[in-house]
Amino acid sequence: MAGNSFGNVFRITTFGESHGTGIGVIIDGCPAGFELDIDAIQLEMDRRKPGQSLLTSQRKESDTVSIVSGLFEGKTTGMPIAITIPNEDQRSKDYSHLADTFRPSHADYTYQAKYGIRDYRGGGRSSARETAARVAAGAIAKQILRKAGVEIHAFVSQVGKIGLEKPYTKYDQTKTEMSPVRCPDPLISKQMENLIDEIRLQKDTIGGQVSCVCSGVPVGLGEPVFDKLHADLGKAMLSINAVKGFQIGSGFDSMGLTGSEHNDKFYLDGERMRTHTNHSGGVLGGISNGEHIMFDVAFKPVATIMQAQPTLNAAGEMVVIEGKGRHDPCVLPRAVPIVEAMAALVLVDFWLRNRAARV
Amino acid sequence: MAGNSFGNVFRITTFGESHGTGIGVIIDGCPAGFELDIDAIQLEMDRRKPGQSLLTSQRKESDTVSIVSGLFEGKTTGMPIAITIPNEDQRSKDYSHLADTFRPSHADYTYQAKYGIRDYRGGGRSSARETAARVAAGAIAKQILRKAGVEIHAFVSQVGKIGLEKPYTKYDQTKTEMSPVRCPDPLISKQMENLIDEIRLQKDTIGGQVSCVCSGVPVGLGEPVFDKLHADLGKAMLSINAVKGFQIGSGFDSMGLTGSEHNDKFYLDGERMRTHTNHSGGVLGGISNGEHIMFDVAFKPVATIMQAQPTLNAAGEMVVIEGKGRHDPCVLPRAVPIVEAMAALVLVDFWLRNRAARV
Amino acid sequence: MAGNSFGNVFRITTFGESHGTGIGVIIDGCPAGFELDIDAIQLEMDRRKPGQSLLTSQRKESDTVSIVSGLFEGKTTGMPIAITIPNEDQRSKDYSHLADTFRPSHADYTYQAKYGIRDYRGGGRSSARETAARVAAGAIAKQILRKAGVEIHAFVSQVGKIGLEKPYTKYDQTKTEMSPVRCPDPLISKQMENLIDEIRLQKDTIGGQVSCVCSGVPVGLGEPVFDKLHADLGKAMLSINAVKGFQIGSGFDSMGLTGSEHNDKFYLDGERMRTHTNHSGGVLGGISNGEHIMFDVAFKPVATIMQAQPTLNAAGEMVVIEGKGRHDPCVLPRAVPIVEAMAALVLVDFWLRNRAARV
Amino acid sequence: MAGNSFGNVFRITTFGESHGTGIGVIIDGCPAGFELDIDAIQLEMDRRKPGQSLLTSQRKESDTVSIVSGLFEGKTTGMPIAITIPNEDQRSKDYSHLADTFRPSHADYTYQAKYGIRDYRGGGRSSARETAARVAAGAIAKQILRKAGVEIHAFVSQVGKIGLEKPYTKYDQTKTEMSPVRCPDPLISKQMENLIDEIRLQKDTIGGQVSCVCSGVPVGLGEPVFDKLHADLGKAMLSINAVKGFQIGSGFDSMGLTGSEHNDKFYLDGERMRTHTNHSGGVLGGISNGEHIMFDVAFKPVATIMQAQPTLNAAGEMVVIEGKGRHDPCVLPRAVPIVEAMAALVLVDFWLRNRAARV
Repeated sequence: MAGNSFGNVFRITTFGESHGTGIGVIIDGCPAGFELDIDAIQLEMDRRKPGQSLLTSQRKESDTVSIVSGLFEGKTTGMPIAITIPNEDQRSKDYSHLADTFRPSHADYTYQAKYGIRDYRGGGRSSARETAARVAAGAIAKQILRKAGVEIHAFVSQVGKIGLEKPYTKYDQTKTEMSPVRCPDPLISKQMENLIDEIRLQKDTIGGQVSCVCSGVPVGLGEPVFDKLHADLGKAMLSINAVKGFQIGSGFDSMGLTGSEHNDKFYLDGERMRTHTNHSGGVLGGISNGEHIMFDVAFKPVATIMQAQPTLNAAGEMVVIEGKGRHDPCVLPRAVPIVEAMAALVLVDFWLRNRAARV
Repeated sequence: MAGNSFGNVFRITTFGESHGTGIGVIIDGCPAGFELDIDAIQLEMDRRKPGQSLLTSQRKESDTVSIVSGLFEGKTTGMPIAITIPNEDQRSKDYSHLADTFRPSHADYTYQAKYGIRDYRGGGRSSARETAARVAAGAIAKQILRKAGVEIHAFVSQVGKIGLEKPYTKYDQTKTEMSPVRCPDPLISKQMENLIDEIRLQKDTIGGQVSCVCSGVPVGLGEPVFDKLHADLGKAMLSINAVKGFQIGSGFDSMGLTGSEHNDKFYLDGERMRTHTNHSGGVLGGISNGEHIMFDVAFKPVATIMQAQPTLNAAGEMVVIEGKGRHDPCVLPRAVPIVEAMAALVLVDFWLRNRAARV
Repeated sequence: MAGNSFGNVFRITTFGESHGTGIGVIIDGCPAGFELDIDAIQLEMDRRKPGQSLLTSQRKESDTVSIVSGLFEGKTTGMPIAITIPNEDQRSKDYSHLADTFRPSHADYTYQAKYGIRDYRGGGRSSARETAARVAAGAIAKQILRKAGVEIHAFVSQVGKIGLEKPYTKYDQTKTEMSPVRCPDPLISKQMENLIDEIRLQKDTIGGQVSCVCSGVPVGLGEPVFDKLHADLGKAMLSINAVKGFQIGSGFDSMGLTGSEHNDKFYLDGERMRTHTNHSGGVLGGISNGEHIMFDVAFKPVATIMQAQPTLNAAGEMVVIEGKGRHDPCVLPRAVPIVEAMAALVLVDFWLRNRAARV
Repeated sequence: MAGNSFGNVFRITTFGESHGTGIGVIIDGCPAGFELDIDAIQLEMDRRKPGQSLLTSQRKESDTVSIVSGLFEGKTTGMPIAITIPNEDQRSKDYSHLADTFRPSHADYTYQAKYGIRDYRGGGRSSARETAARVAAGAIAKQILRKAGVEIHAFVSQVGKIGLEKPYTKYDQTKTEMSPVRCPDPLISKQMENLIDEIRLQKDTIGGQVSCVCSGVPVGLGEPVFDKLHADLGKAMLSINAVKGFQIGSGFDSMGLTGSEHNDKFYLDGERMRTHTNHSGGVLGGISNGEHIMFDVAFKPVATIMQAQPTLNAAGEMVVIEGKGRHDPCVLPRAVPIVEAMAALVLVDFWLRNRAARV
C-alpha cells in the first residue's frame, strides 16, 4: 500500500535512505533449499556501484552485502532473507543547502508536499541509492532463474542520439561487460563514451536507452488480464529512477505496421511451437510464449547538473542552486544491472505464481 | 494473484468471456455516500461499444449495465458494487474452426499451454470484450474524480504513420468526440479515417497511438518507490489488449536531451509551485506535481485480419485460417475510453491511498 | 482493503445485499482443468438455505446458483468463476420500520456511523444471507480438496447448555446430516431440538457451538509466522456472522494443563510421523502436521428476537422494536455448512500457496 | 503470501531467527510527521525481554532497538521504518543435539517437512524470539493510537486453574505492571506466582490466559464482511506462539445465553450512543461501536520442559530428549506486551483504512 514492496510470491520490501546508516531489503517468499552464491550477489552490486569509471559518480561505496536471516548452512530456508548494505561515503553537508530548496525535476517538491517532511540529504529515499537494494534481491532472483534455464542480459542501446544500428541478435551479449558504457558494439560504445565525456565536461547530463533480452523463459508466465507479463515488466522498469518509457517487442514502431506485417507466424521447431519473427517480444496475451522477451527502457538525463540553475525554495522565493556532490553525467552504464534485477524479480515471481495455474 | 484484480483501495475484479452469458466487474472499496450517475456510466459504455461507425467491428452489443449491489437510493453504500453486462450478439459458431488452431499473435497458444484448456470462442477471456467491464468501473472512478476536480481526456494521436503535428495544448479536447476516429484535429482525423478505410478494404489492420491528459490532479498522488504514479499508469495501460508501449512526458524523446534542456524549471503561480515546461509529464519522483499528467500508449495492429494466414494447430500441423466474425480494422477509436477508464482507476486508487500519508 | 475478499491464491470476493436483486461471488485463482460437479454445489446451498425445518427461518429461497464464467465444457479454465444467486423471497416492507432505528446487537448503528448510509432492508450487506455466497465458493474448494484426499466435517456440538459428552472420535460423522440440528449424537440431537423449539415458542433465540474436523490434510499447510494455519482458520470463522470465539485442539482447556500433560508425543505409524494425542489440533508452529485439524466455533444467540425491545433511533430517541420477518431461533444447524465452507476456502488456499515453498 | 507480513496500510514484515545475528522488522505505511518516542519503544521491549524475574527465561538479551530508516530529525517521514535488534546471548550449542530430533509439540517436524531444511538452533524462526520484532513495531502503533485517544491494556487473567474472579472493570489496570505476573489483582497475582514457581521446580510448564481491553477506540473501525475487526484481532492473537484460542466479549459463554439476555441495549450518553452491557466486546457487525474492545487469549503450556521426553528423530528412531537452555515455565507474563502489540497493529491499520470509507 505505501509502495515499498514489489512482487507477490517472491516479494521484496526495500528500506533506507541515501544518507542514513544504510539501506536494505527483505525478500519474503524465496523458496527453501536453494544454495546461494554470495559472490554472485556481490558481483551484481559491483556492476551497479559508483566509481567504476570516470563515466560514473565518484562516490565511494563498497556496497558490501550482509545476509542477516533466511540462510542456513548456505541454503535458503524459506524464511525471510534480510540483506543490509551500509552507507559508507555519505557527505551529508554537501546537501545542507538543499534543506529548503526544491531542485528542478527532482522529487524534493513532491515529497515535501505529500509527506510534509523529507530527508533532504542526497534526496533521501528518492535517491537512486535505493536501487542497490533491488540489485541485491534481483541477484538472488537471477540465480534461481539461471538454474531454471533463464538468462537475462541488458545493455545500453542508446546514449543521447547515438544508438545501436543492428538488431540485438547481431551482438554477442557476453561482450557487454567489456565496454565501460555496457554497450555490446565496440565502435558505438567508444562513441558513447566520448559523448558522455563531452557532456560531463559541459557540466551537463545525457539520457539514453537500456534494452533487455530474457532467454530460456518457459511458456506460461504471466497472469492475465491485469498482471500481464509485459504489464508487470513495464511497471517494474518505470519504477526505476529516471525512466520515462517502456516498450516491448515492436513497441512504438508497431504503430506504423499493418496486421499482416506485424503478426508473428508460427512454425514447428522439433516439438516446440515457435515464431519466425518476434514482434510480440516473447509475450502473447500477457503470457510468455517461449521466444526471447525483449524490451526497451528510456532514461531521461540526470536532473542534477553541475551548472547554476534558478529554482524555488520552500518560501516560494527564487534562488540559484548548483550541483554539488558526486553525480553521474549519464546513468545508463549503471542502469544495466538495475534493469536486469527488476526483470529477474518479475520473472521469478511469475514463475512461482504459475505453479498454481492447474490442479 | 491470478491477475483479474486491479487497484488497492479502489479495487476491481473483472470476470466473463467473450461468448459466455456475460461479463462484469466488482468494485470493492468505492467510498460510501457518492451519488452515482448511471447515465454517465452508460455513455462511457457507448463510447467503447462496437458498431459505432464503419471504422469499428459490426458486432451488435448494447452493453447495457446492471448494477446489482452496493447502491442504495442512488448512492454508494461502501459495499461492493457488482456490475453485469450481458453478451447479446455471440456468434460462437464463427469460432468453432479455432478450437484446435492457434491464431498468429493471439493468446490462443499461450492460454492453451498455460492452463491446458481454453474457451476458444471469440478468444474467451483474452478477448478485448473484457475491457467493457473496465470501462464500466472506470466510469464510476471518473465521476468521483470529476467531483474532486480531475478531468481525463484521451484522444487518438496517431494511426499508422499519420500523427498529430502539434502539441496537445494546441487542441480543443472537447472536440475529440466529434471525430469518428477520436482525433481532435479535424483534418488529420479525416486522413486517419481514410487510412483506416483503405486498410479495411485491404482486409488488413493498422496500429496507432492514444495520448491522454489528466488535469486537476492534486499534488501528492503516487507511492514511491515501487508504486510510482507513472509506474502504475504504465502497468494499467500495458494491461490493455494490443498495447506495446507506454511513455510519460518527454518519454523516449528524453533520451536525446541533456539535463539542462530537460529539467522543468519551477515558478510561482500565485501560491502554487508550477513548472514552465512539463517534460516530467506531471510526475516527479513518482508523485504527481500538479501539472498535467500526460502520457502516450502504443497499440499494435489488431492480430485478426481477413486474409488467409498459415498457422499451426494443436497437433503441430500447418493449417490456413482466415478471419471470420466482425473485427475492427483499427482499435484506436474504441481504445480511447478504455485508456481513460484505466487512468481513472489508477488515479482514484492513489487519491484514496494518499489519505493515509500523514498522521 | 475494503474487506470483501478472502484468500490469497484461491481468492473470493462476495457481493450483494439481503434484499437487493441477488448476491454472488467471484473466485479468482481456481486452478484450471478441474471438472466441477454443479449438483454438489447445489447440495451445499440446500444445507444452508432457510426453511429446511421448523428449527430455521421460514424465508423461502431456492438459492439456485448460476455459474456465469470460468467454466468451459464442464471444466474450470483458470479464469475467474462468477456465481450469482438471486434473492427471491424479499419482503422488504418487513423492514421499513427499521430505516431509522438501530436494533440492539445488530450492525445497524455501526454501519450507519462508519459509512453515513446503509441499506437497512434485512440488514443489507450485514445479513447472514451473504454467507450463501461463501457456501457456493466453499463447495468448489471442497471438491478440489476431496480429490486431494481432504474431507471436512462440521457438526453442532452444543446448543445452549446442552453439549456433546463424548469426544468427536466416538461419533460417526456421516450421521450428522440425519439430525435436523446437525448433531451426530441422536439422543443429544433430540434434546437440542426440544430446546430450540422451546426457545422459539418463548420468542427468544439461543447460541451454541459448531465443531469441525478436517482429515487427510497433507503435512505442510500454513505460512508462518503471521499466516499460521490456525490463525487464518480463526479469522475465517470469526468473520462468520454471530461468531464470538474460536479454539483449536485443546483450546481454552489447554490453560489448565502442564506441558508434560499437553505435549503430543510422536510415534511412527509405518512411514508416517504421528502423535498419540492431538492437543495441537493438527497444527504445529502454524503448519499442518497430518493429524486431524480440529476446532470449535462459538456462536452467540441471534440478535433478532420476536419480543419487544427498547432501543434508540437515529435521532437518539428511545423507541420500541419487535422482530418481524422470518428469523432463526438458533443459527447453529445452518451454520454447519458455512463453517465447512470457510474451512475449505482456507485449506485450498494454503494448499496452493504451499506449491511455492521449495525450489 | 509467505506469511511474514501483517497489516494492510500499516504493514509490518518481520525477519530473523532465534540464533542468527539478529531479528528485525520493517514498517511500511507509517504515516509521516509523527514524533517518535524511542524510549517508549525500548520500554515495551523491556516488558517482553527474558530475565525480568525468576518467573521467566534467564536468557540475557538487552533487546536494544536500532532505527535504521524512516526517521528524520525525530519524526517519521512516511518512508519504511526498519528496526533491528541484535541477538546477544545465543548459546547455539545448547541446541546441537536437536539437529535431527523433533521436539514434541514444537515446530521442528512441520518446518522440516514443509521446507526440507530448518535452522534448528533455538527453534530458528519458529522461536518466540520473533515476537520481539512485533513488540517494537507495536510500540510505534501504540504511540500513534495513544495520540488518537486509544489505550490498550492487557493483563494475565488466568494461570493454570487460577483465574481472576471479578470482571476487568473492577481492577485498576495501571497496577498490572506492579505484579511480576502482570495480573492486576495482588492476591491472585501472588497465587499465580506461587503456582509458576512450583511448576518450575517440577521442571514443568503451565498455560494461562491473557485478557486485553482497548479503550477510546473510535466508532467505525473494521471492514466487513471478511476483515471484521474481531476477525483480524483473532488472527493477530492466534499468530502468537502457543496461542490456542480467542474469544471476544461474551465469547464461549455466549453459547449458554438467550438473545434476550445477550443483546446489549442502547442508551444515550450525552450525544454518544452507548450500550448498557458489552457482550459484544466493542464490535457490532465487525465494526467498532465505541465501547471497550475486550477479548481473551488462551496460551497452552510451553512445549519445552526440563524433563526427559521420548520422541522421534529424522530417521524415525525413538530417542529421549531433555530441555536444555533457558526457558520460561510460563509465558504469560511476557505475553502481555505481545498481545498489546498485536492489538495495536490491528487497530492502527483499521484506523488508517477507515480514512477511505467515505468520499
